[in-house]
Amino acid sequence: MDKLLVLFTLSGSLFALIFAFITARKVIKFPEGTELMKKISLSIRCGANAYLKRQYKIALVFFGIMFVVLGAMAFAGYLTPYVPFAFVTGGFFSALSGFVGMKIATLANSRTANACQDGLNKGLRVAFSSGSVMGFTVVGLGLLDISIWFFLLKFVFQLSNEAITSSMLTFGMGASSMALFARVGGGVFTKAADVGADLVGKVEVGIPEDDPRNPAVIADNVGDNVGDVAGMGADLYESYVGSIISACALGVAALQSIQAMALPMLLSAIGVVCSIIGTFFVRTKEGANQKQLLKALSRGTNFSAVSIAIISLPLVYFTLGKENWTIYFAILAGLVAGVLIGQATEYFTSDSYKPTKNLAATSETGTATIIISGLSVGMISTLVPIVIVAVCILVAYFVSGGANDSSMGLYGIALAAVGMLSTLGITLATDAYGPVADNAGGIAEMAGLDKKVRERTDALDSLGNTTAATGKGFAIGSAALTALALMASYIDKVKTLEGGAQKIADLSITNPTVLVGLFIGSCLPFVFAALTMNSVGRAAQSVVKEVRRQFKEIKGLMTGEAEADYENCIDICTKASLKEMILPTVIAVIVPIIVGLVLGCAGVVGMLGGATVSGFLLAVFMSNSGGAWDNAKKYIESGVYGGKGSDNHKAAVVGDTVGDPFKDTAGPAINILIKLLSMVSIVFAAIVVNFSLL
Amino acid sequence: MDKLLVLFTLSGSLFALIFAFITARKVIKFPEGTELMKKISLSIRCGANAYLKRQYKIALVFFGIMFVVLGAMAFAGYLTPYVPFAFVTGGFFSALSGFVGMKIATLANSRTANACQDGLNKGLRVAFSSGSVMGFTVVGLGLLDISIWFFLLKFVFQLSNEAITSSMLTFGMGASSMALFARVGGGVFTKAADVGADLVGKVEVGIPEDDPRNPAVIADNVGDNVGDVAGMGADLYESYVGSIISACALGVAALQSIQAMALPMLLSAIGVVCSIIGTFFVRTKEGANQKQLLKALSRGTNFSAVSIAIISLPLVYFTLGKENWTIYFAILAGLVAGVLIGQATEYFTSDSYKPTKNLAATSETGTATIIISGLSVGMISTLVPIVIVAVCILVAYFVSGGANDSSMGLYGIALAAVGMLSTLGITLATDAYGPVADNAGGIAEMAGLDKKVRERTDALDSLGNTTAATGKGFAIGSAALTALALMASYIDKVKTLEGGAQKIADLSITNPTVLVGLFIGSCLPFVFAALTMNSVGRAAQSVVKEVRRQFKEIKGLMTGEAEADYENCIDICTKASLKEMILPTVIAVIVPIIVGLVLGCAGVVGMLGGATVSGFLLAVFMSNSGGAWDNAKKYIESGVYGGKGSDNHKAAVVGDTVGDPFKDTAGPAINILIKLLSMVSIVFAAIVVNFSLL
Repeated sequence: MDKLLVLFTLSGSLFALIFAFITARKVIKFPEGTELMKKISLSIRCGANAYLKRQYKIALVFFGIMFVVLGAMAFAGYLTPYVPFAFVTGGFFSALSGFVGMKIATLANSRTANACQDGLNKGLRVAFSSGSVMGFTVVGLGLLDISIWFFLLKFVFQLSNEAITSSMLTFGMGASSMALFARVGGGVFTKAADVGADLVGKVEVGIPEDDPRNPAVIADNVGDNVGDVAGMGADLYESYVGSIISACALGVAALQSIQAMALPMLLSAIGVVCSIIGTFFVRTKEGANQKQLLKALSRGTNFSAVSIAIISLPLVYFTLGKENWTIYFAILAGLVAGVLIGQATEYFTSDSYKPTKNLAATSETGTATIIISGLSVGMISTLVPIVIVAVCILVAYFVSGGANDSSMGLYGIALAAVGMLSTLGITLATDAYGPVADNAGGIAEMAGLDKKVRERTDALDSLGNTTAATGKGFAIGSAALTALALMASYIDKVKTLEGGAQKIADLSITNPTVLVGLFIGSCLPFVFAALTMNSVGRAAQSVVKEVRRQFKEIKGLMTGEAEADYENCIDICTKASLKEMILPTVIAVIVPIIVGLVLGCAGVVGMLGGATVSGFLLAVFMSNSGGAWDNAKKYIESGVYGGKGSDNHKAAVVGDTVGDPFKDTAGPAINILIKLLSMVSIVFAAIVVNFSLL
Repeated sequence: MDKLLVLFTLSGSLFALIFAFITARKVIKFPEGTELMKKISLSIRCGANAYLKRQYKIALVFFGIMFVVLGAMAFAGYLTPYVPFAFVTGGFFSALSGFVGMKIATLANSRTANACQDGLNKGLRVAFSSGSVMGFTVVGLGLLDISIWFFLLKFVFQLSNEAITSSMLTFGMGASSMALFARVGGGVFTKAADVGADLVGKVEVGIPEDDPRNPAVIADNVGDNVGDVAGMGADLYESYVGSIISACALGVAALQSIQAMALPMLLSAIGVVCSIIGTFFVRTKEGANQKQLLKALSRGTNFSAVSIAIISLPLVYFTLGKENWTIYFAILAGLVAGVLIGQATEYFTSDSYKPTKNLAATSETGTATIIISGLSVGMISTLVPIVIVAVCILVAYFVSGGANDSSMGLYGIALAAVGMLSTLGITLATDAYGPVADNAGGIAEMAGLDKKVRERTDALDSLGNTTAATGKGFAIGSAALTALALMASYIDKVKTLEGGAQKIADLSITNPTVLVGLFIGSCLPFVFAALTMNSVGRAAQSVVKEVRRQFKEIKGLMTGEAEADYENCIDICTKASLKEMILPTVIAVIVPIIVGLVLGCAGVVGMLGGATVSGFLLAVFMSNSGGAWDNAKKYIESGVYGGKGSDNHKAAVVGDTVGDPFKDTAGPAINILIKLLSMVSIVFAAIVVNFSLL
């Protein structure tokens, strides 16, 4: 069984990686277009690479320090010696996921623009293929990391199952730390460049979006890649790996069997196959309209979801046996919940539905009302996902036999998260192609291609917004479930430590340390959101100043006689965002340790619960407010309420600008935060148990 | 002991009411000013009275229905027969508190304006006296209600101590329901009128604030009274009574003695005396500047706080005996925490400090950045109050002996809330005089008084903003502590019911029903905030339309030849706000019952915990964002960053408009919500225990 498991997981991983490789080769074969397009694409690629290089350098310092700290802890006997290495590999693979995704995205942008000259369908194929490369690289590397470590720990070091899962949780911490760097750094970069380019270019100077005269235009396009692509890749790598290993850990705790540990891995490996097959359904006939394209995309994701739902049933039956087969419904609940949250997200943020339409209407009475209403839409939109997650938790818990054995119930919750992310390969592909289309539009504009091309890339982009809503549903929903699973893993971990069981005996919500932990944990996402939004604000200010300077000092810039200094803007964004990404990550690592040392393990559990709940709410609120503002603006641009350039449109632009850091910086970063807090708590559990005050 | 207790509490109540009465007579003796001032004041008074009358009618229907429901439950044996009556009296006294406060405020506004003609000090005296009437009416009626019911239940119906506190908790529910009506209705009224008057008057037509030509100007002033005065009165009546009775209930649970129940009542009664003496310290010499006035106010509140801190020590010692005297530090912790939260609020929202100064600076880059930064300020400002409350909870719990006996610890937390509110008489006075000064300014403007008068009322008003920050600190802090105390009371209540103990046996945060309750509870404040903000938006839209209509249709309005139809604007605000206040209140009453019936008692506890934590965070966030925007705008108006009329100022006005429903509608309503949820849960506990699904 054990070796078969490694083989199976490794095969899943290799399938994914080979598929990604083949697809990448296909993408590269498409022609890049004119010399100018090549040049622009190269600038973007160079800027993005330069940024990542510097980001990795800073991450390296952080990982170096953490390696020493964890090494010292291992040396002192508080950790197994594998932990520091697992931590570093987690970070490495997370970074690699982002890097590969970005590499292909920056190669695909001009190719997509070029393909759009031939037609919408061809453009979709290039962009979607690029998204697939990223999607399957993420899952492939995730499974690779897991199977290698499992192999090493099981067969080389011959650890017990408990020790294996406990060590494996550490590479989750590495992955999450790296993901947070990537998300915050990339998120600040992209929004600073975006806001800077818009505020001076569009508003002050009055040139259109993506105009090559705008000194921040390349930085803006670089930002799409380092934020929306590299950041997302690292982020979802972390979600994927986190959900699998927390399920493995809880499976071992619940059933003490290798089978329980195998299920999440097998499920994910099969999910890869279903996702690969799904991608072949993403095809339409030439001349397809937007609706048909959306259908094509949905056909792919739906096929994958339905087939994994069907295959899971015998899989669960054969791995866990007939006494535990009902846990299958936990997986199903997770899958369904992911889809439903995605639909709820779409309802609240798409301009096909009432909330965003009404939001656009409030622009009639000015900026203040569209801001107030956008905040309301986001706040009220939390209700549906909360209810979905609540029902999913209850179903997953009780169908898994939680009523008799709570550890089985928690295993069920973790499996729901794995189920939700099992088709990540394809859902991420439909999500990640959006920024490629966005970039392609920028290149089409800058290279002065036919207007039709821009229209087609815009159609792809707006399609991407809809699929991104679904992707967000999966990301947020799985984050909440995984965070809960990790909280349960933390409790299990503490119980195994000497003197730990008594520290965690009273987890009642009326225990003041749990309660105080709950208060502090709930506060963290608020603080985190504030910090990242301030970071965007500060970074944007420096971009604004630089763009203003260039317009003033470079003569002939407006007439097109002189070229803007794009490099300098990229450099400023890079410096600013790298500076800003450090504090939030350090806070996320240090706070759980401090809370643990002061309040003890029960306080940590309270903190994790509070952070999960309030983080989930804040992430949904901020993502949906941001999405609704974005689409309300686009809706107005389509010609209603005065259209582009009207006062209503100006009000909507303010809404969209407020929404930018909401949905692309703070919101996604919170998703990572809530998991990183748990991972850090698990890794430092032994220290807390031994040295805490309370 | 028992009878002495009634006598003592009743004396405290009568002291307060007599002092309020005498002060009211003093206020009325001041002259009202010119005929025009009298006329304006009369219009405001009539509008406010008309609004309240209709509000009470709707509340009457609600209370009627609830009386029948509770009566039926009592008849079926799920409640004691006193409950329906207690519920109604709670609502009645809460409404009366608001009514009396508003009565005196609408009598004092023109008198304050008139007194300001003589000097700042005299103006302060009138306004502050009016605030005192409200403050002492609230505490007087609170203690009256408590002592009457205690007398009846103890001596007439001869109930046990447990049964007494259990029945008394019901009038808390009545008070909270009424307070929610008053806060939401009043909050929507005042902000709809304010936004409507500003958007059309200031922005579209370009006439100054409080210009008599603006049709919504009287409605705006009426709004200050029904929202900031009547709403606040009902609100703080609810906080005051809620904190006392929850402490009584937990005292009985912890020590099974009448002494433990007596302590909160005695503490409050003595607090009244300290507060009355404190008011005599609010005095300055003629020609005092603003700083000296602030000093005078602080001298009053500080004297009261210090004296109650000193007197509590022997009080605790003699009531609870030397084995429990350390609980004194819980009271002290509450007092100190209230002051510290107030100072933190001031730091984040006053333009004397960095956050608001920096916020004003972000107006340089436009509306979007001031919105983003304002939201950040609010979010990050949650950290300090969270830490203060966390420390207060831990201190209160452990000094009360919670380590050995958790019920003692919870009693300590409840006493911290009582300590925090013990000097409410005077803190509310310094808070409630603000709206009177605001109104006085409006009257001075409309009656065309000397510019100096307006300057003086503005000075009083801005002073009021500072003291209101402190008041808010007490309101928010005490709400969190009281909500926790009520949650503990709920658990005690369930335990006393047949079959209840087993339903509440596992309150561990890993219990899925607790967890799901936590998710749903945390979501409620978000939904609630969204609903109330939408209400303001909708109501403001109808005011905007009406004001536009009047400017268009009434000829000679702009030249002053014709008079605006003030009545119609008031009528529209009234109708809109009354319609909007129903849904939130009904939700707050129904949700805990539904959650209870589905998830059972453990789910309810989770819900209460979640609502308390996320409600606290959201209330602080929204209040402080709103406060910071308000003062950033005022800071710019003082002449920096371009001053009045500049683009920066316009951006700041948008921020202030967004902040209005944040700080004056949603924020305060959440404070009431979190307590009402607990009260409803307690009253319907028997139904839930008997009929819940899980």
